[in-house]
Amino acid sequence: MDDKPTVLKLGGSVITNKEKPLTPDLKAIERLTTEISRAKVSSLVLVHGGGSFGHPVAERYNIAGGYVDQSQILGFSQTHLAMTLLNSWVMEALINHNIPALEIHPSSCAVTKFGRIVNMELKPLKKMLKLGFMPVLYGDAVLDSKQGFAILSGDQLVSSLAIKLGACRIIMGADVDGLYTADPKVFSSAQLISHLTLEELKSLEHKIEGSKTTDVTGGMLGKIHEVKLAIEHDIETVIVNATKSLRVYNALKGEKVIGTIIEKG
Amino acid sequence: MDDKPTVLKLGGSVITNKEKPLTPDLKAIERLTTEISRAKVSSLVLVHGGGSFGHPVAERYNIAGGYVDQSQILGFSQTHLAMTLLNSWVMEALINHNIPALEIHPSSCAVTKFGRIVNMELKPLKKMLKLGFMPVLYGDAVLDSKQGFAILSGDQLVSSLAIKLGACRIIMGADVDGLYTADPKVFSSAQLISHLTLEELKSLEHKIEGSKTTDVTGGMLGKIHEVKLAIEHDIETVIVNATKSLRVYNALKGEKVIGTIIEKG
Repeated sequence: MDDKPTVLKLGGSVITNKEKPLTPDLKAIERLTTEISRAKVSSLVLVHGGGSFGHPVAERYNIAGGYVDQSQILGFSQTHLAMTLLNSWVMEALINHNIPALEIHPSSCAVTKFGRIVNMELKPLKKMLKLGFMPVLYGDAVLDSKQGFAILSGDQLVSSLAIKLGACRIIMGADVDGLYTADPKVFSSAQLISHLTLEELKSLEHKIEGSKTTDVTGGMLGKIHEVKLAIEHDIETVIVNATKSLRVYNALKGEKVIGTIIEKG
Repeated sequence: MDDKPTVLKLGGSVITNKEKPLTPDLKAIERLTTEISRAKVSSLVLVHGGGSFGHPVAERYNIAGGYVDQSQILGFSQTHLAMTLLNSWVMEALINHNIPALEIHPSSCAVTKFGRIVNMELKPLKKMLKLGFMPVLYGDAVLDSKQGFAILSGDQLVSSLAIKLGACRIIMGADVDGLYTADPKVFSSAQLISHLTLEELKSLEHKIEGSKTTDVTGGMLGKIHEVKLAIEHDIETVIVNATKSLRVYNALKGEKVIGTIIEKG
Protein backbone atom coordinates (compact mmCIF):
# COMPACT_ATOMS: atom_id res chain seq x y z
CA MET A 1 0.00 0.00 0.00
CA ASP A 2 2.94 2.31 -0.56
CA ASP A 3 1.69 3.49 -3.97
CA LYS A 4 1.69 7.16 -4.61
CA PRO A 5 -1.83 8.34 -3.80
CA THR A 6 -4.29 9.96 -6.16
CA VAL A 7 -6.13 13.01 -4.82
CA LEU A 8 -9.72 13.37 -6.01
CA LYS A 9 -11.69 16.57 -5.52
CA LEU A 10 -15.47 16.60 -5.76
CA GLY A 11 -16.70 20.17 -6.01
CA GLY A 12 -19.44 21.42 -3.74
CA SER A 13 -21.53 22.28 -6.79
CA VAL A 14 -21.37 18.61 -7.83
CA ILE A 15 -22.55 17.00 -4.60
CA THR A 16 -25.03 19.64 -3.40
CA ASN A 17 -27.87 21.61 -4.87
CA LYS A 18 -26.19 25.02 -4.89
CA GLU A 19 -29.52 26.85 -5.18
CA LYS A 20 -31.06 25.30 -2.03
CA PRO A 21 -29.26 25.75 1.32
CA LEU A 22 -28.25 22.55 3.11
CA THR A 23 -29.43 20.26 0.31
CA PRO A 24 -27.20 17.37 -0.71
CA ASP A 25 -27.51 16.00 -4.25
CA LEU A 26 -27.99 12.44 -3.06
CA LYS A 27 -28.27 11.07 -6.59
CA ALA A 28 -24.91 12.56 -7.53
CA ILE A 29 -23.32 11.35 -4.27
CA GLU A 30 -24.68 7.85 -4.88
CA ARG A 31 -23.46 7.76 -8.50
CA LEU A 32 -20.00 9.11 -7.67
CA THR A 33 -19.61 6.74 -4.74
CA THR A 34 -20.39 3.86 -7.06
CA GLU A 35 -17.81 5.13 -9.57
CA ILE A 36 -15.16 5.42 -6.83
CA SER A 37 -16.01 1.95 -5.55
CA ARG A 38 -15.81 0.39 -9.02
CA ALA A 39 -12.53 2.11 -9.92
CA LYS A 40 -10.74 0.38 -7.00
CA VAL A 41 -7.84 2.85 -6.81
CA SER A 42 -5.47 1.36 -4.23
CA SER A 43 -4.44 4.67 -2.67
CA LEU A 44 -6.96 7.47 -2.85
CA VAL A 45 -7.59 10.67 -0.90
CA LEU A 46 -10.96 12.37 -1.39
CA VAL A 47 -11.57 16.07 -0.78
CA HIS A 48 -15.01 17.58 -1.19
CA GLY A 49 -16.30 21.13 -1.27
CA GLY A 50 -19.07 22.78 0.72
CA GLY A 51 -21.58 23.86 -1.90
CA SER A 52 -24.90 24.88 -0.40
CA PHE A 53 -23.83 23.68 3.07
CA GLY A 54 -20.75 25.73 3.83
CA HIS A 55 -20.95 28.84 1.72
CA PRO A 56 -24.22 30.54 2.71
CA VAL A 57 -23.54 30.30 6.47
CA ALA A 58 -19.88 31.27 6.05
CA GLU A 59 -20.92 34.35 4.10
CA ARG A 60 -23.58 35.42 6.57
CA TYR A 61 -20.97 35.65 9.35
CA ASN A 62 -18.08 36.70 7.11
CA ILE A 63 -15.98 33.77 8.35
CA ALA A 64 -13.52 34.03 5.45
CA GLY A 65 -12.65 37.57 6.53
CA GLY A 66 -11.50 36.37 9.95
CA TYR A 67 -12.46 37.27 13.50
CA VAL A 68 -13.89 40.73 14.00
CA ASP A 69 -16.08 40.34 17.04
CA GLN A 70 -17.66 37.80 19.39
CA SER A 71 -20.93 37.77 17.40
CA GLN A 72 -19.22 35.60 14.74
CA ILE A 73 -18.23 32.85 17.17
CA LEU A 74 -21.56 31.01 17.06
CA GLY A 75 -21.67 31.55 13.29
CA PHE A 76 -18.33 29.84 12.97
CA SER A 77 -19.68 26.85 14.90
CA GLN A 78 -22.73 26.80 12.62
CA THR A 79 -20.59 26.97 9.48
CA HIS A 80 -18.46 24.05 10.62
CA LEU A 81 -21.54 22.09 11.72
CA ALA A 82 -23.08 22.55 8.27
CA MET A 83 -19.92 21.20 6.65
CA THR A 84 -19.91 18.16 8.91
CA LEU A 85 -23.53 17.48 7.93
CA LEU A 86 -22.59 17.34 4.24
CA ASN A 87 -19.55 15.25 5.10
CA SER A 88 -21.80 12.76 6.95
CA TRP A 89 -23.86 12.22 3.79
CA VAL A 90 -20.69 11.52 1.83
CA MET A 91 -19.20 9.24 4.50
CA GLU A 92 -22.37 7.18 4.86
CA ALA A 93 -22.62 6.68 1.11
CA LEU A 94 -18.97 5.62 0.84
CA ILE A 95 -19.16 3.17 3.75
CA ASN A 96 -22.47 1.78 2.46
CA HIS A 97 -20.53 0.95 -0.72
CA ASN A 98 -18.00 -0.94 1.40
CA ILE A 99 -15.33 1.69 0.93
CA PRO A 100 -13.25 1.93 4.14
CA ALA A 101 -13.47 5.70 4.28
CA LEU A 102 -12.37 7.80 7.26
CA GLU A 103 -12.85 11.52 7.45
CA ILE A 104 -10.15 13.90 8.52
CA HIS A 105 -11.65 17.12 9.79
CA PRO A 106 -9.36 20.01 8.85
CA SER A 107 -10.47 22.10 11.83
CA SER A 108 -9.35 19.27 14.14
CA CYS A 109 -5.80 19.12 12.81
CA ALA A 110 -4.93 22.27 10.87
CA VAL A 111 -4.32 25.91 11.74
CA THR A 112 -3.93 28.41 8.93
CA LYS A 113 -2.04 31.72 8.80
CA PHE A 114 -3.99 34.38 6.89
CA GLY A 115 -5.98 31.52 5.38
CA ARG A 116 -2.99 29.47 4.24
CA ILE A 117 -2.10 26.07 5.71
CA VAL A 118 1.02 26.41 7.85
CA ASN A 119 0.42 23.69 10.35
CA MET A 120 -1.40 20.49 9.52
CA GLU A 121 -0.99 17.23 11.42
CA LEU A 122 -0.74 14.49 8.80
CA LYS A 123 0.32 11.49 10.90
CA PRO A 124 -3.21 10.04 11.20
CA LEU A 125 -3.84 10.54 7.47
CA LYS A 126 -0.58 8.83 6.45
CA LYS A 127 -1.30 5.89 8.74
CA MET A 128 -4.80 5.61 7.26
CA LEU A 129 -3.41 5.36 3.73
CA LYS A 130 -0.87 2.75 4.81
CA LEU A 131 -3.58 0.53 6.31
CA GLY A 132 -5.78 0.78 3.21
CA PHE A 133 -8.28 3.40 4.33
CA MET A 134 -9.53 6.19 2.10
CA PRO A 135 -9.08 9.52 3.92
CA VAL A 136 -11.82 12.05 3.19
CA LEU A 137 -11.33 15.78 3.82
CA TYR A 138 -13.41 18.81 3.00
CA GLY A 139 -13.29 22.57 2.76
CA ASP A 140 -13.76 23.70 6.35
CA ALA A 141 -13.89 26.66 8.69
CA VAL A 142 -10.60 26.48 10.60
CA LEU A 143 -8.68 28.36 13.27
CA ASP A 144 -6.11 30.86 12.03
CA SER A 145 -3.01 32.05 13.86
CA LYS A 146 -3.25 35.60 12.53
CA GLN A 147 -6.93 36.36 11.88
CA GLY A 148 -8.63 34.12 14.44
CA PHE A 149 -10.31 31.91 11.86
CA ALA A 150 -10.53 31.44 8.13
CA ILE A 151 -12.03 29.33 5.37
CA LEU A 152 -9.68 26.58 4.26
CA SER A 153 -10.89 25.71 0.78
CA GLY A 154 -11.07 22.19 -0.55
CA ASP A 155 -8.89 23.33 -3.44
CA GLN A 156 -6.09 24.49 -1.16
CA LEU A 157 -6.35 21.17 0.68
CA VAL A 158 -6.09 19.23 -2.59
CA SER A 159 -2.96 21.02 -3.66
CA SER A 160 -1.31 20.98 -0.23
CA LEU A 161 -2.06 17.29 0.37
CA ALA A 162 -0.95 16.26 -3.13
CA ILE A 163 2.40 17.97 -2.57
CA LYS A 164 2.91 16.69 0.98
CA LEU A 165 1.87 13.13 0.16
CA GLY A 166 3.83 13.01 -3.10
CA ALA A 167 0.66 12.24 -5.04
CA CYS A 168 0.88 10.86 -8.57
CA ARG A 169 -2.23 12.70 -9.79
CA ILE A 170 -4.94 15.16 -8.96
CA ILE A 171 -8.43 14.71 -10.38
CA MET A 172 -10.61 17.78 -10.08
CA GLY A 173 -14.28 16.82 -10.36
CA ALA A 174 -16.00 20.05 -11.37
CA ASP A 175 -19.39 21.02 -12.80
CA VAL A 176 -17.87 21.95 -16.17
CA ASP A 177 -16.07 19.75 -18.69
CA GLY A 178 -12.69 21.33 -17.97
CA LEU A 179 -10.89 24.57 -18.74
CA TYR A 180 -12.26 26.69 -21.52
CA THR A 181 -10.96 29.57 -23.55
CA ALA A 182 -13.69 31.58 -21.76
CA ASP A 183 -16.40 30.87 -19.16
CA PRO A 184 -18.75 28.40 -20.92
CA LYS A 185 -21.60 29.39 -18.60
CA VAL A 186 -21.47 32.90 -20.06
CA PHE A 187 -19.93 32.60 -23.54
CA SER A 188 -21.36 30.01 -25.93
CA SER A 189 -18.25 30.39 -28.09
CA ALA A 190 -16.03 29.07 -25.28
CA GLN A 191 -13.90 26.08 -26.32
CA LEU A 192 -12.68 23.21 -24.13
CA ILE A 193 -8.89 22.96 -23.80
CA SER A 194 -7.87 19.29 -23.62
CA HIS A 195 -4.21 19.75 -22.73
CA LEU A 196 -2.12 22.49 -21.19
CA THR A 197 1.42 22.90 -19.94
CA LEU A 198 2.07 24.99 -16.85
CA GLU A 199 3.46 27.78 -19.01
CA GLU A 200 0.37 27.76 -21.23
CA LEU A 201 -1.82 27.76 -18.12
CA LYS A 202 -0.08 30.81 -16.71
CA SER A 203 -0.51 32.77 -19.90
CA LEU A 204 -4.16 31.72 -20.07
CA GLU A 205 -4.85 32.46 -16.44
CA HIS A 206 -5.84 36.09 -16.78
CA LYS A 207 -8.46 35.15 -19.38
CA ILE A 208 -10.32 32.69 -17.18
CA GLU A 209 -13.40 34.16 -15.67
CA GLY A 210 -14.46 33.39 -12.10
CA SER A 211 -17.61 31.31 -11.88
CA LYS A 212 -20.83 33.22 -11.23
CA THR A 213 -22.43 31.35 -8.32
CA THR A 214 -21.65 32.11 -4.67
CA ASP A 215 -18.28 30.61 -3.75
CA VAL A 216 -16.32 32.22 -0.94
CA THR A 217 -13.23 30.24 -1.98
CA GLY A 218 -13.26 31.49 -5.56
CA GLY A 219 -14.61 29.83 -8.68
CA MET A 220 -12.52 28.23 -11.41
CA LEU A 221 -9.93 30.99 -11.07
CA GLY A 222 -9.33 30.10 -7.43
CA LYS A 223 -9.14 26.41 -8.28
CA ILE A 224 -6.53 26.95 -10.96
CA HIS A 225 -4.53 29.22 -8.71
CA GLU A 226 -4.35 26.52 -6.01
CA VAL A 227 -3.74 23.59 -8.34
CA LYS A 228 -0.87 25.41 -10.03
CA LEU A 229 1.19 24.92 -6.88
CA ALA A 230 0.86 21.14 -7.21
CA ILE A 231 1.54 21.18 -10.94
CA GLU A 232 4.76 23.07 -10.20
CA HIS A 233 5.68 19.98 -8.14
CA ASP A 234 5.17 17.90 -11.29
CA ILE A 235 1.80 16.46 -10.24
CA GLU A 236 -0.39 15.90 -13.28
CA THR A 237 -3.84 17.38 -12.86
CA VAL A 238 -6.99 16.39 -14.72
CA ILE A 239 -10.16 18.48 -14.61
CA VAL A 240 -13.29 16.51 -15.46
CA ASN A 241 -17.02 17.10 -15.27
CA ALA A 242 -18.15 15.12 -12.23
CA THR A 243 -21.81 15.90 -12.92
CA LYS A 244 -21.57 13.62 -15.99
CA SER A 245 -21.66 9.87 -15.66
CA LEU A 246 -18.37 7.93 -15.70
CA ARG A 247 -16.07 10.93 -16.18
CA VAL A 248 -14.66 10.53 -12.66
CA TYR A 249 -14.55 6.74 -13.08
CA ASN A 250 -12.60 7.03 -16.33
CA ALA A 251 -10.21 9.55 -14.82
CA LEU A 252 -9.64 7.33 -11.76
CA LYS A 253 -8.86 4.37 -14.05
CA GLY A 254 -6.42 6.51 -16.02
CA GLU A 255 -8.54 6.06 -19.14
CA LYS A 256 -9.13 8.58 -21.90
CA VAL A 257 -11.75 11.08 -20.76
CA ILE A 258 -13.24 14.41 -21.84
CA GLY A 259 -11.54 17.03 -19.72
CA THR A 260 -8.43 19.17 -19.33
CA ILE A 261 -5.05 17.67 -18.49
CA ILE A 262 -2.49 20.08 -17.10
CA GLU A 263 1.16 18.99 -16.83
CA LYS A 264 4.31 20.78 -15.78
CA GLY A 265 5.58 20.20 -19.33
CA MET B 1 -10.17 33.88 28.07
CA ASP B 2 -6.97 32.62 29.65
CA ASP B 3 -8.73 30.93 32.57
CA LYS B 4 -7.75 27.40 33.39
CA PRO B 5 -10.29 25.21 31.63
CA THR B 6 -12.68 22.77 33.24
CA VAL B 7 -12.94 19.37 31.56
CA LEU B 8 -16.41 17.81 31.63
CA LYS B 9 -17.00 14.17 30.73
CA LEU B 10 -20.45 12.91 29.83
CA GLY B 11 -20.48 9.13 29.89
CA GLY B 12 -21.86 7.17 26.96
CA SER B 13 -24.37 5.53 29.29
CA VAL B 14 -25.71 8.99 30.14
CA ILE B 15 -26.34 10.31 26.62
CA THR B 16 -27.35 7.07 24.87
CA ASN B 17 -29.71 4.20 25.53
CA LYS B 18 -27.10 1.53 26.23
CA GLU B 19 -29.57 -1.29 25.59
CA LYS B 20 -30.51 -0.17 22.05
CA PRO B 21 -27.76 0.18 19.43
CA LEU B 22 -27.35 3.61 17.85
CA THR B 23 -29.99 5.24 20.05
CA PRO B 24 -29.24 8.65 21.56
CA ASP B 25 -31.01 9.66 24.75
CA LEU B 26 -32.23 12.95 23.30
CA LYS B 27 -33.98 13.98 26.51
CA ALA B 28 -30.76 13.59 28.47
CA ILE B 29 -28.75 15.43 25.80
CA GLU B 30 -31.27 18.26 25.80
CA ARG B 31 -31.29 18.56 29.60
CA LEU B 32 -27.49 18.43 29.92
CA THR B 33 -27.03 20.95 27.12
CA THR B 34 -29.37 23.31 28.96
CA GLU B 35 -27.38 22.80 32.18
CA ILE B 36 -24.10 23.53 30.38
CA SER B 37 -25.60 26.60 28.72
CA ARG B 38 -26.97 27.97 32.01
CA ALA B 39 -23.73 27.35 33.94
CA LYS B 40 -21.80 29.70 31.61
CA VAL B 41 -18.33 28.30 32.42
CA SER B 42 -15.93 30.62 30.61
CA SER B 43 -13.47 27.91 29.58
CA LEU B 44 -14.89 24.43 29.15
CA VAL B 45 -13.83 21.30 27.26
CA LEU B 46 -16.47 18.59 26.80
CA VAL B 47 -15.63 14.92 26.24
CA HIS B 48 -18.36 12.36 25.66
CA GLY B 49 -18.40 8.60 25.54
CA GLY B 50 -19.76 6.24 22.91
CA GLY B 51 -22.43 4.23 24.71
CA SER B 52 -24.64 2.30 22.33
CA PHE B 53 -23.03 3.96 19.29
CA GLY B 54 -19.38 3.06 19.60
CA HIS B 55 -19.17 -0.07 21.71
CA PRO B 56 -21.28 -2.68 19.86
CA VAL B 57 -19.60 -2.02 16.47
CA ALA B 58 -16.13 -1.79 18.03
CA GLU B 59 -16.66 -5.14 19.72
CA ARG B 60 -17.96 -6.88 16.61
CA TYR B 61 -14.72 -6.10 14.77
CA ASN B 62 -12.45 -6.27 17.81
CA ILE B 63 -11.15 -2.77 17.12
CA ALA B 64 -9.71 -2.36 20.63
CA GLY B 65 -7.45 -5.36 20.04
CA GLY B 66 -5.80 -3.69 17.06
CA TYR B 67 -5.31 -4.67 13.43
CA VAL B 68 -5.33 -8.40 12.71
CA ASP B 69 -6.52 -8.57 9.12
CA GLN B 70 -8.05 -6.55 6.30
CA SER B 71 -11.59 -7.68 7.20
CA GLN B 72 -11.55 -5.23 10.13
CA ILE B 73 -10.83 -2.19 7.99
CA LEU B 74 -14.44 -1.52 7.00
CA GLY B 75 -15.50 -2.28 10.59
CA PHE B 76 -13.12 0.41 11.80
CA SER B 77 -14.75 2.90 9.41
CA GLN B 78 -18.17 1.86 10.67
CA THR B 79 -17.13 2.23 14.31
CA HIS B 80 -15.83 5.71 13.70
CA LEU B 81 -18.91 6.64 11.64
CA ALA B 82 -21.17 5.53 14.49
CA MET B 83 -19.24 7.73 16.90
CA THR B 84 -19.54 10.73 14.60
CA LEU B 85 -23.31 10.15 14.42
CA LEU B 86 -23.61 10.41 18.20
CA ASN B 87 -21.29 13.41 18.19
CA SER B 88 -23.57 15.13 15.63
CA TRP B 89 -26.55 14.81 17.99
CA VAL B 90 -24.50 16.41 20.77
CA MET B 91 -23.11 19.17 18.55
CA GLU B 92 -26.52 20.11 17.16
CA ALA B 93 -28.01 20.31 20.65
CA LEU B 94 -25.15 22.49 21.93
CA ILE B 95 -25.25 24.88 18.98
CA ASN B 96 -29.07 25.06 19.15
CA HIS B 97 -28.53 26.31 22.72
CA ASN B 98 -26.24 29.03 21.35
CA ILE B 99 -23.13 27.39 22.74
CA PRO B 100 -20.23 27.99 20.32
CA ALA B 101 -19.17 24.36 20.31
CA LEU B 102 -16.62 22.89 17.91
CA GLU B 103 -15.80 19.21 17.77
CA ILE B 104 -12.26 17.90 17.69
CA HIS B 105 -12.20 14.43 16.18
CA PRO B 106 -9.49 12.40 17.94
CA SER B 107 -8.93 10.21 14.86
CA SER B 108 -8.14 13.36 12.85
CA CYS B 109 -5.41 14.59 15.17
CA ALA B 110 -4.18 11.79 17.44
CA VAL B 111 -2.19 8.59 16.98
CA THR B 112 -1.88 6.21 19.91
CA LYS B 113 0.84 3.69 20.77
CA PHE B 114 -0.61 0.45 22.13
CA GLY B 115 -3.79 2.41 22.83
CA ARG B 116 -2.10 5.26 24.71
CA ILE B 117 -1.97 8.84 23.39
CA VAL B 118 1.58 9.62 22.32
CA ASN B 119 0.91 12.13 19.61
CA MET B 120 -2.00 14.54 19.68
CA GLU B 121 -2.12 17.85 17.84
CA LEU B 122 -3.55 20.39 20.29
CA LYS B 123 -2.94 23.67 18.45
CA PRO B 124 -6.48 23.93 17.03
CA LEU B 125 -8.00 23.05 20.42
CA LYS B 126 -5.94 25.65 22.27
CA LYS B 127 -6.85 28.32 19.73
CA MET B 128 -10.53 27.39 20.08
CA LEU B 129 -10.40 27.90 23.85
CA LYS B 130 -8.66 31.25 23.43
CA LEU B 131 -11.35 32.54 21.08
CA GLY B 132 -14.17 31.44 23.39
CA PHE B 133 -15.25 28.21 21.70
CA MET B 134 -16.12 25.06 23.61
CA PRO B 135 -14.10 22.15 22.17
CA VAL B 136 -15.96 18.84 22.17
CA LEU B 137 -14.14 15.50 21.91
CA TYR B 138 -15.28 11.92 22.23
CA GLY B 139 -14.02 8.39 22.69
CA ASP B 140 -13.01 7.36 19.18
CA ALA B 141 -11.47 4.63 17.06
CA VAL B 142 -8.00 5.97 16.21
CA LEU B 143 -4.87 4.94 14.35
CA ASP B 144 -2.12 3.36 16.42
CA SER B 145 1.60 3.32 15.66
CA LYS B 146 2.13 -0.19 17.04
CA GLN B 147 -1.11 -2.11 16.59
CA GLY B 148 -2.62 -0.43 13.54
CA PHE B 149 -5.59 1.00 15.36
CA ALA B 150 -7.07 1.19 18.84
CA ILE B 151 -9.93 2.55 20.90
CA LEU B 152 -9.04 5.85 22.53
CA SER B 153 -11.45 6.10 25.44
CA GLY B 154 -13.13 9.31 26.47
CA ASP B 155 -11.67 8.78 29.95
CA GLN B 156 -8.10 8.71 28.67
CA LEU B 157 -8.86 11.86 26.67
CA VAL B 158 -10.24 13.61 29.77
CA SER B 159 -7.17 12.86 31.81
CA SER B 160 -4.68 13.61 29.04
CA LEU B 161 -6.36 16.90 28.07
CA ALA B 162 -6.73 18.03 31.67
CA ILE B 163 -3.01 17.54 32.22
CA LYS B 164 -1.89 19.09 28.93
CA LEU B 165 -4.24 22.08 29.22
CA GLY B 166 -3.49 22.67 32.90
CA ALA B 167 -7.18 22.26 33.76
CA CYS B 168 -8.47 23.47 37.11
CA ARG B 169 -11.03 20.68 37.43
CA ILE B 170 -12.42 17.51 35.96
CA ILE B 171 -16.13 16.73 36.24
CA MET B 172 -17.00 13.14 35.46
CA GLY B 173 -20.69 12.85 34.58
CA ALA B 174 -21.49 9.18 35.19
CA ASP B 175 -24.67 7.11 35.60
CA VAL B 176 -24.01 6.57 39.31
CA ASP B 177 -23.86 9.11 42.15
CA GLY B 178 -20.11 8.73 42.55
CA LEU B 179 -17.67 6.21 43.99
CA TYR B 180 -19.08 3.64 46.35
CA THR B 181 -17.60 1.26 48.83
CA ALA B 182 -18.86 -1.45 46.42
CA ASP B 183 -20.74 -1.53 43.09
CA PRO B 184 -24.16 0.00 43.93
CA LYS B 185 -25.73 -1.73 40.90
CA VAL B 186 -24.94 -5.08 42.53
CA PHE B 187 -24.69 -4.47 46.28
CA SER B 188 -27.52 -2.58 48.01
CA SER B 189 -25.24 -2.06 51.02
CA ALA B 190 -22.83 0.02 48.93
CA GLN B 191 -22.16 3.48 50.39
CA LEU B 192 -21.33 6.68 48.54
CA ILE B 193 -17.91 8.14 49.33
CA SER B 194 -18.10 11.94 49.27
CA HIS B 195 -14.40 12.75 49.55
CA LEU B 196 -11.17 10.89 48.86
CA THR B 197 -7.50 11.72 48.75
CA LEU B 198 -5.31 10.11 46.11
CA GLU B 199 -3.82 7.80 48.74
CA GLU B 200 -7.25 6.71 49.92
CA LEU B 201 -8.29 6.17 46.31
CA LYS B 202 -5.34 3.91 45.64
CA SER B 203 -6.03 1.75 48.66
CA LEU B 204 -9.71 1.57 47.68
CA GLU B 205 -9.01 0.81 44.04
CA HIS B 206 -8.86 -2.96 44.23
CA LYS B 207 -12.26 -3.04 45.90
CA ILE B 208 -14.08 -1.17 43.15
CA GLU B 209 -15.96 -3.49 40.89
CA GLY B 210 -16.09 -2.94 37.11
CA SER B 211 -19.51 -1.97 35.87
CA LYS B 212 -21.59 -4.74 34.35
CA THR B 213 -22.72 -3.32 30.99
CA THR B 214 -20.71 -3.67 27.78
CA ASP B 215 -17.91 -1.11 27.80
CA VAL B 216 -14.77 -1.88 25.80
CA THR B 217 -12.95 0.92 27.62
CA GLY B 218 -13.64 -0.46 31.08
CA GLY B 219 -16.33 0.54 33.57
CA MET B 220 -15.79 2.59 36.71
CA LEU B 221 -12.47 0.84 37.32
CA GLY B 222 -11.11 2.05 33.99
CA LYS B 223 -12.40 5.55 34.66
CA ILE B 224 -10.66 5.75 38.02
CA HIS B 225 -7.46 4.37 36.59
CA GLU B 226 -7.35 7.11 33.93
CA VAL B 227 -8.45 9.95 36.18
CA LYS B 228 -5.79 9.06 38.75
CA LEU B 229 -3.16 10.36 36.33
CA ALA B 230 -4.77 13.81 36.35
CA ILE B 231 -5.25 13.81 40.10
CA GLU B 232 -1.54 13.12 40.48
CA HIS B 233 -1.10 16.43 38.62
CA ASP B 234 -3.16 18.06 41.36
CA ILE B 235 -6.34 18.39 39.27
CA GLU B 236 -9.39 18.07 41.49
CA THR B 237 -11.89 15.57 40.13
CA VAL B 238 -15.59 15.40 40.90
CA ILE B 239 -17.72 12.41 39.96
CA VAL B 240 -21.42 13.22 39.72
CA ASN B 241 -24.54 11.47 38.47
CA ALA B 242 -25.28 13.11 35.11
CA THR B 243 -28.52 11.19 34.73
CA LYS B 244 -29.96 13.24 37.60
CA SER B 245 -31.14 16.79 37.08
CA LEU B 246 -28.82 19.70 37.99
CA ARG B 247 -25.93 17.57 39.30
CA VAL B 248 -23.75 18.57 36.33
CA TYR B 249 -24.99 22.16 36.59
CA ASN B 250 -24.12 22.36 40.29
CA ALA B 251 -20.72 20.82 39.67
CA LEU B 252 -19.99 23.25 36.82
CA LYS B 253 -20.94 26.19 39.09
CA GLY B 254 -18.65 24.84 41.80
CA GLU B 255 -21.64 24.44 44.12
CA LYS B 256 -22.20 21.73 46.71
CA VAL B 257 -23.40 18.59 44.96
CA ILE B 258 -23.97 14.90 45.72
CA GLY B 259 -20.96 13.07 44.34
CA THR B 260 -17.37 12.09 45.02
CA ILE B 261 -14.57 14.64 45.13
CA ILE B 262 -11.06 13.27 44.71
CA GLU B 263 -8.09 15.47 45.48
CA LYS B 264 -4.36 14.87 45.54
CA GLY B 265 -4.47 15.65 49.28
